[in-house]
Formats: sequence, structure tokens, C-alpha cells
Amino acid sequence: MQAIDQVIKTEKKKVDQKIIDKIDRLRQKSDFTLNSILDSMEYSLSAGGKRIRPIITVKVAEMFKGNLKAAYDLGLALEFIHSYSLIHDDLPAMDDDNYRRGQLSNHKVFGEGMAVLTGDALLTFAFRQLASLNLEPTKIVKIIKLVADKAGFLGMVGGQSLDIRYEDQKIDLDTLMKIHQFKTGALFKAAVLGGAYCASIDQEQEEALDNYAEKLGLLFQITDDILDKTGNYDKMGKPIGSDEELNKSTYVSILGLAKAREKAVKTADKARKALKIFKEAEFLTSLINYILNRDS
Amino acid sequence: MQAIDQVIKTEKKKVDQKIIDKIDRLRQKSDFTLNSILDSMEYSLSAGGKRIRPIITVKVAEMFKGNLKAAYDLGLALEFIHSYSLIHDDLPAMDDDNYRRGQLSNHKVFGEGMAVLTGDALLTFAFRQLASLNLEPTKIVKIIKLVADKAGFLGMVGGQSLDIRYEDQKIDLDTLMKIHQFKTGALFKAAVLGGAYCASIDQEQEEALDNYAEKLGLLFQITDDILDKTGNYDKMGKPIGSDEELNKSTYVSILGLAKAREKAVKTADKARKALKIFKEAEFLTSLINYILNRDS
Repeated sequence: MQAIDQVIKTEKKKVDQKIIDKIDRLRQKSDFTLNSILDSMEYSLSAGGKRIRPIITVKVAEMFKGNLKAAYDLGLALEFIHSYSLIHDDLPAMDDDNYRRGQLSNHKVFGEGMAVLTGDALLTFAFRQLASLNLEPTKIVKIIKLVADKAGFLGMVGGQSLDIRYEDQKIDLDTLMKIHQFKTGALFKAAVLGGAYCASIDQEQEEALDNYAEKLGLLFQITDDILDKTGNYDKMGKPIGSDEELNKSTYVSILGLAKAREKAVKTADKARKALKIFKEAEFLTSLINYILNRDS
Repeated sequence: MQAIDQVIKTEKKKVDQKIIDKIDRLRQKSDFTLNSILDSMEYSLSAGGKRIRPIITVKVAEMFKGNLKAAYDLGLALEFIHSYSLIHDDLPAMDDDNYRRGQLSNHKVFGEGMAVLTGDALLTFAFRQLASLNLEPTKIVKIIKLVADKAGFLGMVGGQSLDIRYEDQKIDLDTLMKIHQFKTGALFKAAVLGGAYCASIDQEQEEALDNYAEKLGLLFQITDDILDKTGNYDKMGKPIGSDEELNKSTYVSILGLAKAREKAVKTADKARKALKIFKEAEFLTSLINYILNRDS
């Protein structure tokens, strides 16, 4: 297999192009008066980003010889959800971030009201997209349940609500892990399991993937916290140290940098172990190291 | 048939109870840390409201001898969507309303950040609810497409974006009608057609219902504008004249009160005509008069 950097770069290009195509088709369907919300949706969707969730979905579907067209479309829906959550998260009422991926946050360009609506539109459209997946209806319904669970109040949104609940409070490691399991881990699970649902897997495989996704999400969050402390603005596209400024508990603030790094390595080990039952899991294995060693 | 007031009262009670039951079940599924977002969801969901959308869904399903359990669940999902849109609409970044249905707006009680998340959670949960409808998967997928279209940027959210686009501008009647077709009409269509999809209807019936729903949504909006001018605080549960204060174009501001009333009567006629092909449409017919003559 190619080096993972190359695979991710190639897949990211494909996902970027599919997002552009999708917006073009939406423009054709709508009339000019809706240009303002479409412009705002496009602004945030095409703002770059790693596209890690759709890439995972596609690669998992590929691993189980599933329907790749459906996997790309599902991946796009997850990217819409990820994008909406960032728009709402950046609002003054939430994290109050002026920059995202090196450019102004959505509300700094389109205004707060439009930013709220743009997030709502992206979330709603994600489900429209899922309902059109090129799969039998039983599988579509299964995937919509998965995504709604992982994105909703028992998943991503619930995690964000915990962020608010524990604002300005010192929290312990268990609570932090729980918040992140909801906030980041849940959507990673949707990406991994959703990709698998574009194929057919058995119970044992599903459990292993669920376990892998949980560890991968955790690893992603720990490395995120480390990068917020040690990263570089040009690579990250956002100010460094913003967690500290917001007085947020992070793996680094609770454990210190050295122990946070140690926890990342251990979490990577656990993710690797979860893959043991699979004969071929080259991409998923490489992805662990890729996230462990990322610098942006 | 009973007088429509009685039918609506009875159905509203059922819907209210089903919403309470639903929230109870959600609490059982989640853990205490999620109480804050559940409290906020419950606050807005149980704030009363006419429940007109779920009642329509159920009554249309009944008219075509469809699956009533599915119709109630679908109606609840529409109520979640309606409720989320009100929460986001009341935010300072949007209409900045402190009161809704005689009680403080969600963000005045739970804070703006939580209000944003509560809306997100309700919208996401609406699709979770739709995916669990007691119907065959093909119908579920059809209903999810319908609801996502009508609630999304080509429907309700698109209409709200037009509100922002035309803010502080004088607009003509056609533009106002277009905004409302998106903003209010679309979700009424989802309620009517969704109810019909819980049964089986042919193309001609679908077109007639689509036409009826459009006129009903328009009628609802015109009477809303009239009530904002002439209504009474105690019955409305919100300040009268808020449209004027926000400098919003309404049917009353564009046409004047007398012509707006005339337009309401004509729209009611058109809605009645749309029902002509049906032998039995007693509820839908009475509903037109009910909305035309409402005082809250």
C-alpha cells in the first residue's frame, strides 16, 4: 500500500471535489434568493479541514468490500455534520472563536443569525443526503439511526452540552474522557461503523470496530490538546493556547504534557489491539500512527 | 363528527402526553450529566403550543386509513423541528424575543449556548425518531426525504434565511408570500403529506393535498400577521405588535388590515377547493375555518 500520507492526500482531494460538486448541484436546484445561505454553507464546507471522517468511512467500506459510492456520500453527510458543529461551536454564545482553519469563522463573515441557520441547514441536509444513499432502505434506516444517535444529545451535542455544564470547573480525567467520548468519539464511531454498514459485517467485527473507533477518537482528542499547547499557528490555522485562554480542562492541563503524551501512546496501543481480529487492516493501523504523530 | 375545537383539544392532549412520555424515556436512556440539555429540551417541548402540525399529520393519516402510531410519531418529530426552530429564532442573533408562549424564551432560562445546542439536539432527534417509525423502510426513507426537504435550506431554514436577507427592506407581496411558503408552508406540507405517506395515496390525491397544505400554510401566516396586530396578549402568550417593532414586512403592513382579511378569506376558499376531489375531508375542511377564525 502507498504511504498513508499519500492515501489521505488523494482521498482528501476526492472528498473536496465531491463537496464542490454537491454545492454546485444544490445551487442549480435553488433560486438566487437562497444564495446567501448557500454562500455561507459553501464558505464553511470548502474551508479545508482534514476530511478525516469521510476518509475513514470510505476506507472502512473498502476494507469490507462495501459500496464505495454510498460510503463517499455517507462520509460527506458526516462532514456536513462536523462542519455545522464547528460553525455553532465558534459562535460568541459558545467558544467565541474568530478564526477557524486560518480563515474568519462563519459568523464573522455572514453574521451570527446566518451562522445559526447555516448550521441548521447543514445538519438537516446531512439527513437528506443519508436518505438518498445508494443502499437498500433497511441499511439506509440503520445508518440514519447510527448517525442521529452519534450526532445527537446522546452523542456529539450531548458532549458539547457537558462542555457548558463543566465550564470554569476543575474536572477529573474520567469526566474529561467522558465529555470527549461524546463530543469527538461519537462521530468517529459513526464514520467507522457507517463505513462498515456500507458492507456487511458480523457482530464480532462490529464490536472490534466500535472499540477501535472509541480509542481512535480519544487519541485524536489527546493529540488535539497536545497540539493546542505545542502546535504552530501556520500549520493549525488557529491560535495556539486557546484552550488555556478559555480556561478549559484538557488532557494537558490535567495530566501535564509528558503524561498526556504517554496516554496518547497507550491509547494508540489499545486501538491497535482492537484491530487484531482482522487479517487486513493496513489503513486503519497506519491511521493510528498518523494521528499519534500529526502536527496539525 | 365532533366540533373541531373538541377534536383539536382531545388530540392536543394526546400529543402533549406523548411528548412527556418521550422525554421520560430519553431520561431513562441517558445519565444525569445530560440532565441540563434534557431539561432544556423538555422546557421548550412542554411549553404548550397548538400542536397543530402533529394533529394534522394524524388526521390526514386517519382520513386515508393509514398507520396511526406512525402518524403520531411522525407528528412528534415535526413538533421537535418546529420547537427547535422557535428556540433558534428567539435568539438575540435572530429575532431576539424574550418570551414565547407566555414564558421566558429558552435562552433566557438556559443561556444562549445551551439554546443553540438544544435546537441542534431536537433537530437531530427528530430524524432519529423518523428512522424508528413503525413503517416499512421504503416509506421511512420517503418520509425522511420529505421532512429534510421541507425543514432544510430549500424549506423552513431557507425561509428564515430570506427573513435575514430582506431585513429592514420594503418587500412586495410576492416576495413576502415566497418567504412564508418556505418558512411556514413547507413544514405544513410535511405534516399533510407525511400523514398521507403513513397510508397509501395516488398521484392525484398527493397533488391535491400538496395544494391544500400550501394554502393552509399561507392562511396560517396571514392570520398570524393579523393577530400580531389585533390579538390579545393573554391569548397569544407573547407581546402584540412585535412584527411592527422589528420593522418586519407582514401581510398587514403591505396590504393593510382590511385587505389582509380579504386575502385570508380568499386563501381559505382556495384551500377548500383543493379538497374537492375527496369524498371525506371533514376535518381538513373544518380546519380551514378554524384557522381563519382563530384568536390565538
